[in-house]
Amino acid sequence: MEKRGDSRQKAIEAAERLFRTQGYAATGLTEILEVSGAPKGSFYFHFPGGKRELARAVLDAYGARIEAGIRALAARHDGDLAGFVRALCKAAAKDMEATDWTFGCAAQNLANELAPGDGEFAAALAEIFAGWIAAIAEGIKARHPSRAAAERRATAILAALEGARTLARSARSGAAFDAVIDLVLTGQRA
Amino acid sequence: MEKRGDSRQKAIEAAERLFRTQGYAATGLTEILEVSGAPKGSFYFHFPGGKRELARAVLDAYGARIEAGIRALAARHDGDLAGFVRALCKAAAKDMEATDWTFGCAAQNLANELAPGDGEFAAALAEIFAGWIAAIAEGIKARHPSRAAAERRATAILAALEGARTLARSARSGAAFDAVIDLVLTGQRA
Repeated sequence: MEKRGDSRQKAIEAAERLFRTQGYAATGLTEILEVSGAPKGSFYFHFPGGKRELARAVLDAYGARIEAGIRALAARHDGDLAGFVRALCKAAAKDMEATDWTFGCAAQNLANELAPGDGEFAAALAEIFAGWIAAIAEGIKARHPSRAAAERRATAILAALEGARTLARSARSGAAFDAVIDLVLTGQRA
Repeated sequence: MEKRGDSRQKAIEAAERLFRTQGYAATGLTEILEVSGAPKGSFYFHFPGGKRELARAVLDAYGARIEAGIRALAARHDGDLAGFVRALCKAAAKDMEATDWTFGCAAQNLANELAPGDGEFAAALAEIFAGWIAAIAEGIKARHPSRAAAERRATAILAALEGARTLARSARSGAAFDAVIDLVLTGQRA
């Protein structure tokens, strides 16, 4: 017999893949149930609030996973800013290339579709992005005079990474990620 | 009597606003017709291919308008890289702030929703982004040793701007745009 946690987890994983590939509004509950293989009754047991509640669960799991990933990269490249920035950009590019440039960032897709009309969702997204920014700042803090300066730079690095995803999925190439590495590591040419 | 071009133009403008605010999949044809005030028959006269054909028209008009806007900023700040970069970021932030951080980039929203599953749309998006990159490169070329280097930097600047939109609409603040200006103009701290 399937454990209850399994069908919850399967719904989250199926929804994450679909939201990352085609977005929130394009993904119907029927498709999520089909992909996850979970019966409708079990789905509503876990997510009485339906697709929006599932999206929050997807976002929370995705947000925590990405933040842990960034912190692991920062620890591995401790004191090596260039190595950390390269690893961060390469990880995002690899994730996309492995799916033929179809996988976006779940948080970005949900932000662009839901944040404008849903203040609660926007606040949850802002908190997740703030967590990622803090994790990136941790990896580059040695180069900056203050925590605030490191977080400001980390905000720009995250922005560039999110935007590189948009360019990469249109061009179906990782050139935008390489351009971001170059911008962050070399800055303005005199 | 209303001219034919008017109802076509109104449908494009209504759809652009809706795609920028809530995205492509969330926007039904009924809503577009309501907002534009055009009758259904007139809509299908102009867009026999329905919503997808309208989205191409939105994208083409938006892409050309933004490219012209970038070229105008580059001309106004000729030889002043910092002024050009600041004006570019401020223009994007102003556009969002004026709509209470709800207006995204039409090309980004369509890219994230449609590019993964629609090769023809992805190619059209890639061409539009390439046009914007060429326009940004034109504004910063004096600082770079070659056209390729300027386009590479322009690619990273565009990525950062697109991602800043995602962060801004979640945080409902323009801080990400200021962070991007700082990154592009000061680069890595030694």
